[in-house]
Amino acid sequence: MTYFDIDKVAYEGPTSTNPLSFKYYNPDEKIGDKTMKEHLRFSVAYWHTFTADLSDPFGVGTAQRDWDNLDEMDKAKARVEAIFEFMDKTGIEYFCFHDVDIAPEGKTLAETNQNLDVITDLIKDKMAETGKKLLWNTANNFTHERFVHGAATSSHADVFAYAAAKVKKSLEIAKKLDAENFVFWGGREGYESLLNTDMKLELDNLARFFKMAKAYADEIGFTGQFLIEPKPKEPTSHQYDTDVATAHAFLQKYDLDGFFKFNIEANHATLAGHTFQHELRYARDNGMLGSVDANQGHPLLGWDTDEFPSDVYETTLAMYEILKNGGLNPGGLNFDAKPRRTSFTQEDLVLTHIVGMDAFALGLRVAHKMIEDRFFEDIVDNKYASFKNGIGEKIINDATSFEELEQHALQLGDIALQSDHLEVIKSRINQYILTINNEG
Amino acid sequence: MTYFDIDKVAYEGPTSTNPLSFKYYNPDEKIGDKTMKEHLRFSVAYWHTFTADLSDPFGVGTAQRDWDNLDEMDKAKARVEAIFEFMDKTGIEYFCFHDVDIAPEGKTLAETNQNLDVITDLIKDKMAETGKKLLWNTANNFTHERFVHGAATSSHADVFAYAAAKVKKSLEIAKKLDAENFVFWGGREGYESLLNTDMKLELDNLARFFKMAKAYADEIGFTGQFLIEPKPKEPTSHQYDTDVATAHAFLQKYDLDGFFKFNIEANHATLAGHTFQHELRYARDNGMLGSVDANQGHPLLGWDTDEFPSDVYETTLAMYEILKNGGLNPGGLNFDAKPRRTSFTQEDLVLTHIVGMDAFALGLRVAHKMIEDRFFEDIVDNKYASFKNGIGEKIINDATSFEELEQHALQLGDIALQSDHLEVIKSRINQYILTINNEG
Amino acid sequence: MTYFDIDKVAYEGPTSTNPLSFKYYNPDEKIGDKTMKEHLRFSVAYWHTFTADLSDPFGVGTAQRDWDNLDEMDKAKARVEAIFEFMDKTGIEYFCFHDVDIAPEGKTLAETNQNLDVITDLIKDKMAETGKKLLWNTANNFTHERFVHGAATSSHADVFAYAAAKVKKSLEIAKKLDAENFVFWGGREGYESLLNTDMKLELDNLARFFKMAKAYADEIGFTGQFLIEPKPKEPTSHQYDTDVATAHAFLQKYDLDGFFKFNIEANHATLAGHTFQHELRYARDNGMLGSVDANQGHPLLGWDTDEFPSDVYETTLAMYEILKNGGLNPGGLNFDAKPRRTSFTQEDLVLTHIVGMDAFALGLRVAHKMIEDRFFEDIVDNKYASFKNGIGEKIINDATSFEELEQHALQLGDIALQSDHLEVIKSRINQYILTINNEG
Amino acid sequence: MTYFDIDKVAYEGPTSTNPLSFKYYNPDEKIGDKTMKEHLRFSVAYWHTFTADLSDPFGVGTAQRDWDNLDEMDKAKARVEAIFEFMDKTGIEYFCFHDVDIAPEGKTLAETNQNLDVITDLIKDKMAETGKKLLWNTANNFTHERFVHGAATSSHADVFAYAAAKVKKSLEIAKKLDAENFVFWGGREGYESLLNTDMKLELDNLARFFKMAKAYADEIGFTGQFLIEPKPKEPTSHQYDTDVATAHAFLQKYDLDGFFKFNIEANHATLAGHTFQHELRYARDNGMLGSVDANQGHPLLGWDTDEFPSDVYETTLAMYEILKNGGLNPGGLNFDAKPRRTSFTQEDLVLTHIVGMDAFALGLRVAHKMIEDRFFEDIVDNKYASFKNGIGEKIINDATSFEELEQHALQLGDIALQSDHLEVIKSRINQYILTINNEG
Repeated sequence: MTYFDIDKVAYEGPTSTNPLSFKYYNPDEKIGDKTMKEHLRFSVAYWHTFTADLSDPFGVGTAQRDWDNLDEMDKAKARVEAIFEFMDKTGIEYFCFHDVDIAPEGKTLAETNQNLDVITDLIKDKMAETGKKLLWNTANNFTHERFVHGAATSSHADVFAYAAAKVKKSLEIAKKLDAENFVFWGGREGYESLLNTDMKLELDNLARFFKMAKAYADEIGFTGQFLIEPKPKEPTSHQYDTDVATAHAFLQKYDLDGFFKFNIEANHATLAGHTFQHELRYARDNGMLGSVDANQGHPLLGWDTDEFPSDVYETTLAMYEILKNGGLNPGGLNFDAKPRRTSFTQEDLVLTHIVGMDAFALGLRVAHKMIEDRFFEDIVDNKYASFKNGIGEKIINDATSFEELEQHALQLGDIALQSDHLEVIKSRINQYILTINNEG
Repeated sequence: MTYFDIDKVAYEGPTSTNPLSFKYYNPDEKIGDKTMKEHLRFSVAYWHTFTADLSDPFGVGTAQRDWDNLDEMDKAKARVEAIFEFMDKTGIEYFCFHDVDIAPEGKTLAETNQNLDVITDLIKDKMAETGKKLLWNTANNFTHERFVHGAATSSHADVFAYAAAKVKKSLEIAKKLDAENFVFWGGREGYESLLNTDMKLELDNLARFFKMAKAYADEIGFTGQFLIEPKPKEPTSHQYDTDVATAHAFLQKYDLDGFFKFNIEANHATLAGHTFQHELRYARDNGMLGSVDANQGHPLLGWDTDEFPSDVYETTLAMYEILKNGGLNPGGLNFDAKPRRTSFTQEDLVLTHIVGMDAFALGLRVAHKMIEDRFFEDIVDNKYASFKNGIGEKIINDATSFEELEQHALQLGDIALQSDHLEVIKSRINQYILTINNEG
Repeated sequence: MTYFDIDKVAYEGPTSTNPLSFKYYNPDEKIGDKTMKEHLRFSVAYWHTFTADLSDPFGVGTAQRDWDNLDEMDKAKARVEAIFEFMDKTGIEYFCFHDVDIAPEGKTLAETNQNLDVITDLIKDKMAETGKKLLWNTANNFTHERFVHGAATSSHADVFAYAAAKVKKSLEIAKKLDAENFVFWGGREGYESLLNTDMKLELDNLARFFKMAKAYADEIGFTGQFLIEPKPKEPTSHQYDTDVATAHAFLQKYDLDGFFKFNIEANHATLAGHTFQHELRYARDNGMLGSVDANQGHPLLGWDTDEFPSDVYETTLAMYEILKNGGLNPGGLNFDAKPRRTSFTQEDLVLTHIVGMDAFALGLRVAHKMIEDRFFEDIVDNKYASFKNGIGEKIINDATSFEELEQHALQLGDIALQSDHLEVIKSRINQYILTINNEG
Repeated sequence: MTYFDIDKVAYEGPTSTNPLSFKYYNPDEKIGDKTMKEHLRFSVAYWHTFTADLSDPFGVGTAQRDWDNLDEMDKAKARVEAIFEFMDKTGIEYFCFHDVDIAPEGKTLAETNQNLDVITDLIKDKMAETGKKLLWNTANNFTHERFVHGAATSSHADVFAYAAAKVKKSLEIAKKLDAENFVFWGGREGYESLLNTDMKLELDNLARFFKMAKAYADEIGFTGQFLIEPKPKEPTSHQYDTDVATAHAFLQKYDLDGFFKFNIEANHATLAGHTFQHELRYARDNGMLGSVDANQGHPLLGWDTDEFPSDVYETTLAMYEILKNGGLNPGGLNFDAKPRRTSFTQEDLVLTHIVGMDAFALGLRVAHKMIEDRFFEDIVDNKYASFKNGIGEKIINDATSFEELEQHALQLGDIALQSDHLEVIKSRINQYILTINNEG
């Protein structure tokens, strides 16, 4: 059976009006010393693209999918077929999933695990056949009602155990399918209210959980990168992994920072009151930029909208950080994004991925050009020039003291500061974007 | 004396790296049947550009201006020289001011009015000499401590009277200088708290104030357009002219809607939780889009940042609304924007206006092309096609009833709805922007 | 069958620790000239209390209900039994529902209407038997996928017709069950994006829809009050009935303000950037305060949390507005509130309503005392005293002009303004709250 | 000269209507084993109370102060007199200041330091005479234009040196006046935009700065507690000490966590998207709760309003955290709060402090009672009971593994979870507050 009645999506260039073509993403074109495909490492998200029904808190699902009326295991199998066809036609090399995305939960944990075995066998065959790869997988420890009080931070020890069993199984799947990373998103690891929460106990338990997960991964020889995905709130009022800095504090406190990096989502950044670039930069500066959940939010809405990325300012600055990071490998750009509720056809799954892929391809082209030109680098070099010699150099070399600095200050007249001309920088970015077509 | 030691800013095209040139604004180039200059009607804001010192609530001003150390009247005169030189060099045709921007307040109202007479004589001469025009003026009824409880909505009748006297004088100035519009921004017309506020009395008084203003304008033969500028909060906790819709409710209630239009500011729109385009559209749909305060806000900050516009998505959609409005005339695009505190040189005043002018010029180019192509028009025509005949046509013609609609509904099977493909629309906008250079 | 294995909830006073008792709500106690029951007119919301499953966008329902495993019509009947038992035990006199809350949707509109007939017959009998009353009902025109593009503002004429048919049926139910009001909440009447929206057409259609609804109500002799319930966003990015002022503008524009009042929800107010009191005040000042959806939001979260009210500051100020409005009759206080997802037992339905009822009872007690003392009235009288004579009186009487006001201003010296001492007002409110126990 | 023409403010109890009396704060009354004065350790903030003029970004100052027209040094001396009289009359034992609050800046750093010497001599005498104490002092490295690009994180080395010299002098003042703490608030330590910021260099420099400060404090024998005061934004777009967790990450990374605690401000917490209680709890759980800037924000406004605290819910939960912390000593409750712009009289300085002191006194009374009753403790004990034995105990003791947890999970049936009844907890808090008068 064919789920997407289209040809493979081809690059047709910036003036094409064919919605089923790429305008900026040309997979095998070299940008610098790597192809676009190698730079971008796109991944499709099983949940949004093959499981979600586009419901919202005030309405049922609008998604129209070929597998809607199948029974649970047949639906699971159909989705495997569909995602591999989808990856083939869009040219996406990676995919990501939660355990519950790929196989139905059984009446018991044992039955659930059996279902997972059946489907992961199927996926493993498909991977071998197609060469497609698993960017990361994870355990969904937030949807089921047992996680109402949290998972690793549940107030009930049995739930902690259940969550551990699910992560254990997911690590085994990661090993089986050669996942390049393993993600933890703590959707219920937080609180509704502090009035009835022992935050210290819960955070201690979260650290214990991570340590046991790491020990088990080592035991089974799973060597993929562990990633934490921060989010400040939703569904909980306060999520413990609020943002990169908060999770960084946690990892340091519990001596966990050596084996975790971050999976950074654009929309989670803005919900936390930060720019996407800020979260990427913080992680990069600390050697912890692991992977990206590529989407965008609505700046006027207070919840996660998980829109497909289309804003070229955002993708340019994101790709700048990623290029300066030396790329994301073994991470990638996973489209943790869903079509709008009004884009409900199966074809929209393809169309929206094209939009996202083109937006990041464009960002890559612009950011690469900027780096070639040392655009930001020259701005920064000039701005901080005073730290290259004299008292500035002493500061950087930890070779001064308050006494010496006071002596320096006492003999200063007015300090001649430079204007930043920040507005001109923004205008120059527009020029970079608008002239990139001619550089391709 | 020369304040801006530069040549007239010239159009050098999209690849110029000269910050003192236009990349997209080519004043005499025709876009459709009007020149860019005629379309855009740029205006410089006296307050941000010639009066503001770039202080913020936590720091003193950083602006470095040639007139900083002059006494008050000399400073006022120097600024007149400076703004006309500035308009000449940037090619901006219009300017806007509050009474207190142009002349120092005296010890008495009479003395203040005398100061205004001296300076407006000077301005009048300069206008005659240069052909530059006054887009609008207004009275500042918010800075002085007497306005602590409001102006037209003050709890003290004397303050109401004082505010009236200031608007009266400003209307006389508007008449004297042929202002094309007159603006009301109610910076203190709102409340700190409802706990001690008679909102009904205050709004009744605001309506009385507007009616007397209109009567006085008629009496002296001032025929410029009256404009209300909405803002939801800051400095007050709640500002009565919250957004366009709220002010529209007020104008209708008090039978004032016939002689007011709106001056819409981008950053005020986002502070009110709306997009800039939404406010423009609401006003346009109601025939009340009068003028624009062109700036942009920071989506993560909760106060008015009044940044120079640089985001081409925003300027494109704004120019789309403006073009569909048949332009803004007699309104214009006034840069109610200030350089960042870190862009403190006098040259930054020119540089930032270039950034804003280029951003709107780019938006004009893109929006014009979209309208030529009927890009949005075709999307909408297709989406609402069902209202062109059958039951839809009856609805539009007010020719049906709930009984007939029920009969129609009872015989419907599943309704075949169309996907909106909203993401594809956003991607197409990127293409429009990126290919505009080749269209110019 | 018994659904709530408890006695009728009784008033036990402020020191009781029995969670199944009232601490502040004493239904037959007189506060001024009315009993608490008459003042408060509490109503239970069918949807949150008897239909909702406490799911959220990241998790399935946690609610544990006796009727969970029944088939659809049996479930509908069980809920009727349950809500009347619930009203009996809590002493709540009113209830509210959407059409889809009370009866399952059939395969066709005709079948849906038949289901509604069956259940409304049952409800009618129960009402006769118990004396309980229908505060309001409404049609749910937002959950079903056909409403993906709106209902009265859908881009498809068939959907407009379908929505009309549903409102027609709901008006017939309102008539049948003597509903005291009829509510319109436009959950999908708004837009996802302006990029593909004809806002003018949609708003024109919304007005047409309301006019036909009014005509049909007149035709069948339904005389209940029509109410609009504003909300700024969620599920749409922009909802047309953004807040009271916006809906007021709409009603005036289309000459609909004569027959609509407002149903104001606390959490919708805060999502719109207003205090609850502001929305109540605006409606009261315009004679349009009809009814209240009593709940509270989380000030740090950007979505509708619909929490049961517990904040006595909020309930005091709300009850102040309601008392000054002469009460809400024929409106009431409808608990549009749901237990937290972590409060999932059937008993929580009772417990949470007790919390809400006590909070509003407390607010009533405090607000009544304040009004008896003329607490706010004296503050306001003193603050605006200058409008009682002299130039202030002339302003109020529309008996002055800008010329006269200028003459007045010219002879003013410094205006002696009074401090508002707003902080002291807030502290006095604390005292009112803390001493109310002794006043009861 | 007398600045406050009032008697010492006395405790008159909950029913007093004298605004110049305490209703809940009875300084020498014992609450548990300490007097209220010992628990609360109130402090007056020099800047808001004796320096600020109540200007805002749209208006000049409204404050009316006896010292307004004095020259700079006389004004500085008058303020010293005034603050000690103020502390005497309000019974406040502590005060806090920035260097620039107490003495005018000179033309050179040397002159500034001389001014500081003169005034600190005066303060030292007053302290000896009255027994009043310095809770903390700090250096203002944000107001002057030289700090436009930051202080310790400035892009210019000379500014770094200047900031160091100012902190050096302030540490000497701290030593001279026996300050119990020393605060760092990084008002300009952040960025306007990442486009031109080397965040890594800036944060490295910030750490260097702190290390030199610590070294110098050790050198001169200043042993007060170092405190960081987090704030997420304003004046900068992003402030590096965003919130407690972010600063905690920073301190750990640079091995600074051993000698810093936090000064937590309520309004900064809410600007960061957290509750005040959350920030207090995070710090307490990590042994880093040092001191409190007692104020409250406006939940609908996006900037720091620094209102005097009046919300008893907030003060109760804050005092709960403080009591569980074993108090704040050597920290305290500093009123980093200003009268509203409409509360402009000198008397308002007293009135507003009374409001704040009463609000925290009330919070202390309620929180103490709750702790006596083990109100929250019992809720938490019950909620987490499953961790006291069996698999839960093993988890807590780090004595299990994913394998054992999986075995445990595999044999679980449905897990019987408890409802949290969170709404009932909130209602119980109302009862605690409303019955506290009878407990006093």
